[in-house]
Amino acid sequence: MTKLSVRHLLGIKNLNENDIQTILETATQFKEVINRPIKKVPSLRDITIANVFFENSTRTRLSFELAEKRLSADVVNFSASGSSVKKGETLLDTVNNILAMKVDMIVMRHSSPGAPHYLADRIAANVVNAGDGTHEHPTQALLDAFSMKEKLGDLAGKKIAIIGDITHSRVALSNIFCLRKLGAEVMVCGPSTLIPKHLAELGVKISHDVKQALQWCDVANVLRIQLERQQIKYFPSLREYALFFGISKAMLDDLGKEIVLMHPGPINRGVELSSDAADSRHSIILDQVENGVAVRMAVLYLLAQQ
Amino acid sequence: MTKLSVRHLLGIKNLNENDIQTILETATQFKEVINRPIKKVPSLRDITIANVFFENSTRTRLSFELAEKRLSADVVNFSASGSSVKKGETLLDTVNNILAMKVDMIVMRHSSPGAPHYLADRIAANVVNAGDGTHEHPTQALLDAFSMKEKLGDLAGKKIAIIGDITHSRVALSNIFCLRKLGAEVMVCGPSTLIPKHLAELGVKISHDVKQALQWCDVANVLRIQLERQQIKYFPSLREYALFFGISKAMLDDLGKEIVLMHPGPINRGVELSSDAADSRHSIILDQVENGVAVRMAVLYLLAQQ
Amino acid sequence: MTKLSVRHLLGIKNLNENDIQTILETATQFKEVINRPIKKVPSLRDITIANVFFENSTRTRLSFELAEKRLSADVVNFSASGSSVKKGETLLDTVNNILAMKVDMIVMRHSSPGAPHYLADRIAANVVNAGDGTHEHPTQALLDAFSMKEKLGDLAGKKIAIIGDITHSRVALSNIFCLRKLGAEVMVCGPSTLIPKHLAELGVKISHDVKQALQWCDVANVLRIQLERQQIKYFPSLREYALFFGISKAMLDDLGKEIVLMHPGPINRGVELSSDAADSRHSIILDQVENGVAVRMAVLYLLAQQ
Repeated sequence: MTKLSVRHLLGIKNLNENDIQTILETATQFKEVINRPIKKVPSLRDITIANVFFENSTRTRLSFELAEKRLSADVVNFSASGSSVKKGETLLDTVNNILAMKVDMIVMRHSSPGAPHYLADRIAANVVNAGDGTHEHPTQALLDAFSMKEKLGDLAGKKIAIIGDITHSRVALSNIFCLRKLGAEVMVCGPSTLIPKHLAELGVKISHDVKQALQWCDVANVLRIQLERQQIKYFPSLREYALFFGISKAMLDDLGKEIVLMHPGPINRGVELSSDAADSRHSIILDQVENGVAVRMAVLYLLAQQ
Repeated sequence: MTKLSVRHLLGIKNLNENDIQTILETATQFKEVINRPIKKVPSLRDITIANVFFENSTRTRLSFELAEKRLSADVVNFSASGSSVKKGETLLDTVNNILAMKVDMIVMRHSSPGAPHYLADRIAANVVNAGDGTHEHPTQALLDAFSMKEKLGDLAGKKIAIIGDITHSRVALSNIFCLRKLGAEVMVCGPSTLIPKHLAELGVKISHDVKQALQWCDVANVLRIQLERQQIKYFPSLREYALFFGISKAMLDDLGKEIVLMHPGPINRGVELSSDAADSRHSIILDQVENGVAVRMAVLYLLAQQ
Repeated sequence: MTKLSVRHLLGIKNLNENDIQTILETATQFKEVINRPIKKVPSLRDITIANVFFENSTRTRLSFELAEKRLSADVVNFSASGSSVKKGETLLDTVNNILAMKVDMIVMRHSSPGAPHYLADRIAANVVNAGDGTHEHPTQALLDAFSMKEKLGDLAGKKIAIIGDITHSRVALSNIFCLRKLGAEVMVCGPSTLIPKHLAELGVKISHDVKQALQWCDVANVLRIQLERQQIKYFPSLREYALFFGISKAMLDDLGKEIVLMHPGPINRGVELSSDAADSRHSIILDQVENGVAVRMAVLYLLAQQ
């Protein structure tokens, strides 16, 4: 088993291609494990992992927790609501307190971009970034790449369109880094108000026409339009978005080619995807969820070897 | 060990008498287990159970969690607060996501009647209804029947009065189904505003006189008057309810016969029961709680064999 | 191994010196355990512990949970938010319900002084007080004493200053009881509005001059000024407090002697302690956190033998 070049998983940006391949290959083995009748391995017995979530999360927290339990780690959960964070404690003090209780790894979600990087420079434990604001969400990008490879094989030269609100999406940024390192071509597609100008510097194509993007790509990774952002007025509205960028099963069937449909969830059915598209034969959305546990097992396992 | 005729525990309505007896007999064995110094059995090792509570709960969630841990299952808890449900995800998507992470059974509480039935038709995992709105709460009815049998033996011909707010109670409905299938006679008793007219069709007697009900029955299963409903004005008020339907120890002692007093909790002392009644020799309220763990172990164990 | 004279840990007030020494010596052994690669012992296998927190807590709840898991106990967590407590259930009913589910020990935090004592008189399980209002927080005092002994040896004759809001602090009261029983001299120091008059009866010195207190003591145990109390206007304000009672590294360095700096956390950096003081070589704040797990293991272990 190759080792990773990093002690933390802070983002995809600072991984090299070999790190990514090592994680994906290790995840293949763990995917076999979680599909056996006995879904556990003793790999991280005697390792204690704290899931420290300063932002609410369902699927990511649950996916990490299951990955940890499948590895036989001891798991403690810490959420910000009702915690000392509310009492004015600094992030570093909070985490140092948790670590002083002999915790070996920290899985952290935080609303501030860079929060896990700040920590990683200052603490001894391994840090896994489970999402830092609008910055990166590296395990999501890795499970997306794993799911694409499972369907299409080697990603070099494959065409991936990321469609939706690119500006506010940590999933988009981590996907771009990951796919570019694996040699794929990447296009981002969405309304011009939701695509930052600097993306071209990352070597991605930009489109504002969803039909063009679908025509171009092998994989459409469709992002969630965040309902909660609609409380502040912005353009386009949900109805406008659904009208101009929403994807239906008919649109996919009419392409006259194979296309893989992905979504990191939770889906807003009727906004970015119609219900029949989400449930169509093109969709590998639930495979992504399953693969998420295997990929997170691989990340935790590999970091624990460092 | 007989098998159940169902793959899910959605309600008592769709169980046959043999199913109920099988669960109660299996629970007898598990009650021995939880009273041993070593309270665990390895029966559900390698089974992962998610407790998915879309409504708050204390005792039911804790009772299921302990039942699962006594069976050596892996347990993950999911609550709706701060979850993707708030982000507009559908119930089916939420549950399918949890299942894609290789969860074997779902224990669910939901505010909508029929929510677990909707799911059971659409997913592969076993579903246990831990309360669906004002509809059913089958494990409560089973633990109530278990507790009655423990005290009185065979329930055929026994007389059970269910006293309180029948209209808004999932406990009442599940109890009626369960007790009728076991051959008991059932009376519901409460103010006419809190008893739905259609109940007579289920073969139960109706009374609006608590003294008459107590005189008639072998078991009084007293339901909680829900304080939170008092925020909307309704008749009777808590004070009126306590005055006309509240049960005191003196009332029980004066009956000149043995009577078994039950309550599903949480008790509003001074409303539906006086404190001295709740703590009297008639009461088996804490036995119900203990039996709840054993009955839930039986349900989970039997469904896992299906 | 000596036994304790008590069945519960309700406070330091009702422990004798021998109890305290037994806990501290047992904690020494558990501190070795949690610093081994294998941090677990099977001591409390088959014991079920419920953490019942009616008040929010981060570090204390997490520290107890880790202590319980290191002892191989089964752990269930119960928090008041969204629980039956909100539905009008009494404290005793809530706890009796938890115990009826075959829980062996209760670790409880409650906002009312005396709540754990009330329970201990009425239930069979061992009760550990994890903080009752402004009354006692015995495990904090024990871990503080453990940390002082680790640094200074026998505490008889040692001089300890407790600095801050003494009136509203359960940590202060438990510390005073513990340190006096171990033969230490204790001074409390703070603004006169934050020191209750009756403290002199407990055999402690009182000072309103933080420099005098630092000059006098071997250990400065600095308490948190509770930001949340600032919502009601009181004297002094945070700025005034920081100005007159805040402790900086320079103040400690200028003493011309060794001094040990402690704080129960969470720290308000810039209020009661400057950042450089909290991080200085004088500080053993993170040792306190580590020792907390070992001390709580000792308490749980010893009570389980009773």
